[in-house]
Amino acid sequence: MAIRLGDNQYGKAEVRLVRINRDSDVHTIKDVNVTSQLRGDFEAVHTEGDNGNCVATDTQKNTVYAFARRYGVGAIEDFALRLARYHVDTFDQVHGARQEIEEYSWNRIDTAAGPHDHSFVRRGGETRTTVVTKDGDREWVVSGFEGLTVLKSTGSEFHGYPKTEYTTLKETTDRILATDVKARWRYIGTDLDWDKTYASITSIMLEAFAETHSLALQQTLYRMGEAVLEAHPEVAEVRFSMPNNHHFLVDLSPFDLDNPNEVFFAADRPYGKIEATVLRDDAPEPGRAWETVPGFI
Amino acid sequence: MAIRLGDNQYGKAEVRLVRINRDSDVHTIKDVNVTSQLRGDFEAVHTEGDNGNCVATDTQKNTVYAFARRYGVGAIEDFALRLARYHVDTFDQVHGARQEIEEYSWNRIDTAAGPHDHSFVRRGGETRTTVVTKDGDREWVVSGFEGLTVLKSTGSEFHGYPKTEYTTLKETTDRILATDVKARWRYIGTDLDWDKTYASITSIMLEAFAETHSLALQQTLYRMGEAVLEAHPEVAEVRFSMPNNHHFLVDLSPFDLDNPNEVFFAADRPYGKIEATVLRDDAPEPGRAWETVPGFI
Amino acid sequence: MAIRLGDNQYGKAEVRLVRINRDSDVHTIKDVNVTSQLRGDFEAVHTEGDNGNCVATDTQKNTVYAFARRYGVGAIEDFALRLARYHVDTFDQVHGARQEIEEYSWNRIDTAAGPHDHSFVRRGGETRTTVVTKDGDREWVVSGFEGLTVLKSTGSEFHGYPKTEYTTLKETTDRILATDVKARWRYIGTDLDWDKTYASITSIMLEAFAETHSLALQQTLYRMGEAVLEAHPEVAEVRFSMPNNHHFLVDLSPFDLDNPNEVFFAADRPYGKIEATVLRDDAPEPGRAWETVPGFI
Amino acid sequence: MAIRLGDNQYGKAEVRLVRINRDSDVHTIKDVNVTSQLRGDFEAVHTEGDNGNCVATDTQKNTVYAFARRYGVGAIEDFALRLARYHVDTFDQVHGARQEIEEYSWNRIDTAAGPHDHSFVRRGGETRTTVVTKDGDREWVVSGFEGLTVLKSTGSEFHGYPKTEYTTLKETTDRILATDVKARWRYIGTDLDWDKTYASITSIMLEAFAETHSLALQQTLYRMGEAVLEAHPEVAEVRFSMPNNHHFLVDLSPFDLDNPNEVFFAADRPYGKIEATVLRDDAPEPGRAWETVPGFI
Repeated sequence: MAIRLGDNQYGKAEVRLVRINRDSDVHTIKDVNVTSQLRGDFEAVHTEGDNGNCVATDTQKNTVYAFARRYGVGAIEDFALRLARYHVDTFDQVHGARQEIEEYSWNRIDTAAGPHDHSFVRRGGETRTTVVTKDGDREWVVSGFEGLTVLKSTGSEFHGYPKTEYTTLKETTDRILATDVKARWRYIGTDLDWDKTYASITSIMLEAFAETHSLALQQTLYRMGEAVLEAHPEVAEVRFSMPNNHHFLVDLSPFDLDNPNEVFFAADRPYGKIEATVLRDDAPEPGRAWETVPGFI
Repeated sequence: MAIRLGDNQYGKAEVRLVRINRDSDVHTIKDVNVTSQLRGDFEAVHTEGDNGNCVATDTQKNTVYAFARRYGVGAIEDFALRLARYHVDTFDQVHGARQEIEEYSWNRIDTAAGPHDHSFVRRGGETRTTVVTKDGDREWVVSGFEGLTVLKSTGSEFHGYPKTEYTTLKETTDRILATDVKARWRYIGTDLDWDKTYASITSIMLEAFAETHSLALQQTLYRMGEAVLEAHPEVAEVRFSMPNNHHFLVDLSPFDLDNPNEVFFAADRPYGKIEATVLRDDAPEPGRAWETVPGFI
Repeated sequence: MAIRLGDNQYGKAEVRLVRINRDSDVHTIKDVNVTSQLRGDFEAVHTEGDNGNCVATDTQKNTVYAFARRYGVGAIEDFALRLARYHVDTFDQVHGARQEIEEYSWNRIDTAAGPHDHSFVRRGGETRTTVVTKDGDREWVVSGFEGLTVLKSTGSEFHGYPKTEYTTLKETTDRILATDVKARWRYIGTDLDWDKTYASITSIMLEAFAETHSLALQQTLYRMGEAVLEAHPEVAEVRFSMPNNHHFLVDLSPFDLDNPNEVFFAADRPYGKIEATVLRDDAPEPGRAWETVPGFI
Repeated sequence: MAIRLGDNQYGKAEVRLVRINRDSDVHTIKDVNVTSQLRGDFEAVHTEGDNGNCVATDTQKNTVYAFARRYGVGAIEDFALRLARYHVDTFDQVHGARQEIEEYSWNRIDTAAGPHDHSFVRRGGETRTTVVTKDGDREWVVSGFEGLTVLKSTGSEFHGYPKTEYTTLKETTDRILATDVKARWRYIGTDLDWDKTYASITSIMLEAFAETHSLALQQTLYRMGEAVLEAHPEVAEVRFSMPNNHHFLVDLSPFDLDNPNEVFFAADRPYGKIEATVLRDDAPEPGRAWETVPGFI
């Protein structure tokens, strides 16, 4: 019997970086959470505790901060690519890298004199994400967001499903549809206007959610992905994980009250969980793009 | 030795209620979390397990949903007052009530055709709260919010503090000031325009945070409370709990880089914790208003 | 109109301290989370940003670590008292202190050669807590725990409650009773064997939960407090906050199955929330002991 | 351009099930969280909202509860296999299934009369998990746990790593090593004594952590996997995700105190993140076993 090391990666997770741009009195802020991981020739560290090849995770953390000073952050996709390239290009034993970044958004505080120069309020809403994977010369960018919570108070039906021996659910032509959209899309190419594309994709998804008269959450999901692919040839595929956040109509009949789809109990668990990929037929192969992206098929 | 029951209250916590108003095709949504608790003559249930006086927590939950249908929700302060009064007025053994409500905000989704009629996106940002306490005929309303995260990238100093044998902190005339504001204020009276006042107070606090050149987080806190009391005679006092969310300047000198207040490490723990009350001298006594409001002095 | 500063306190929250005792090869570990806050003459820092009296929160943090080295940690009650006394005795402007500590427990890892000398596994289960309040010469110690999750699979009934217009709950003579016990008790005196008392109280509470045939969660709660007070004259009172973690019997009749109290849905929200104090008549007045202890009446 | 549906799965997540066995007065308890998902011919529901093939997620939930009554739960691996087989065998359009289960452990409460018959306290510590994947006739079982927090107070070194332009970390021959072990292992076969194997694997991992003098967390990880594979031929591979939970030695020299590895600051973020697979050379191919298991390579 031979036992051996398989796939592996290591690094520093959740390096919290706030980068202020003070080039003028009107400051700007980038607030990100960086996870840097490396792949390569690391067998000896596992089997013998020989750290000769092991670029310390503390060093990776320092690199994040130094790069933020030296180059600024910019779009998180560019920052992740820069970090991945540095590690693969600099160290012989590093053959690949995975750089994941989350970004939190801030708005300026409104004052009587207008938006404030250097005072901000965190916007809430969705968190923007990217995962850049580099394997030798190949590079993949998977971006997305999580925590975009949306709800339709009507315009959602659910019926026509099979009635099995364990089915008790009643059909409905009017229900609340609510979900927390987690979406990730794979880009074609690595030289794009990331910020502009992100804004467009998010907006398209929201509009598709709103405009789709829904017969199933799956249908809404598919239309959201389709709309993005129609508008953005630089996107190869979109993957979604969307809970069906159940809102149950409360039975008020014991109190001699009707309930014409007005009073709901918002349940926590269990919830539906819908996951699917929408892709274009002629997209390039995904390679290792999705290998370590959690929460998706 | 005599052992006896002291103060007590009981009820149903976190009743999640979503109330849709469908009076027109343009729906509106109220999304709240209600905790209903009662006080009164409940000694026998504790000492003997005699439930003869014990309005079941399940019944309290049903009351929340039935009231939402019968009366709508409206401002959370009004809904909490209505529930408290119902319980105290209806049941002889119920002498008091505590009704706490959190509210989550939603925006309409923007589409090419304008804001959508029945599709919403959760706004994020702060959660609005109220705690209504009723004790016999007396009533108190304490409202507030939590989770309002703000940051100044400059305009904050900290120096002049005592140097003790355990002091190592360096003085600074330029630091990031960041906090998650948790604020609660006690109203005078129970018949106010709650929504309008809430919006005004939140806006005043944000502007005071932005406009104050800070020498200490305590000073910023005080100014935020003072500004509210100056503008709102119907507010007796404001209590704050504000962490000092430390952003540490990263030392880049080992890499031959300066760091002119641009690159920061956003730390999780420990954090400063500043709590204080700002009040008007001629305010009525608080009575039991604050007795069970967590997280404050 | 005069606006002024009311009650206030400030300090450093959640100072994570791990203290290893290496006096022999058999190490011991103390793992705690310390929140240090001071009260006193701090008006100028609020109203003028004058920090002349403001012992920096960073200094308070350093004091925690220095004391851990100088004196060890010992029982968390003793460590909190030591910190509180230091601050009040050392600084004229500090009139009071609040020191809160959480403690996490570890077990030695079992090996073929017996319990390991310096390898530990975190125990899980409840978190031990203390809040020491000092106001001038007066001192109060409130200790407790949170997160002790218990369940009875039978031996719990609920019936006899009032049937109101909003009551739909069915009576039962056999239900699951489950709760996460959060308990805090006020000690009489400050010179006790804290560790021994803590172990005894926790054990008494568990046994009382198990042995009580429950007619209401309130009754179980009361018996738990009563048993502690009967055994421990050094305890003045016990306060509990106990959710009723509902386990709903699943209706399997649509599938031609009975359900003799065997298959349950464990719900998240809403939950019952039962809070009460059990105290001895001749206990000394609580003074400021409970003023800032969250989550209780 | 053609857009189409890619991989997808859907179902009901986090079905909370508590199953009491009351065959004797000495009850036993199973407390699990089941996520059931199906794969198959679901294109029409995505593209047209045609639910004719869509076994409702509510039906899947009912199936979990009905099976718990009909068959009991038993080992979570067996329960997951039973659910997966039912769905694939019963519905033509269902070609595959993914069933994930978490299990929480309870101990009996100790009383003066011995362990109680029907009163339990939740054990804390790690959560046991399984993910069963079925694709047509093929079946894979990946089991594991998460949340096993361990610490060595000595017996851990870190040195010999490359010194790059961004390296500032000092080498050490004595540090705290702490991690939260998340482990998953792939079984060979589907007819094993799951409970016995789980207990053995967990124990082996703990002992390997304790007994390994560590030169790198990677080395400890590898030894933990190797020890499992040596003892259990029915395990094909083990995958770990282990944070390096940093404990930083506090610099007490400003206070004229030394710190001989006794006083540590336990940091939250960032943390090291070490992920690796240990496998046997002659293991069968993994197939789709790992496709949707989050958090691993």
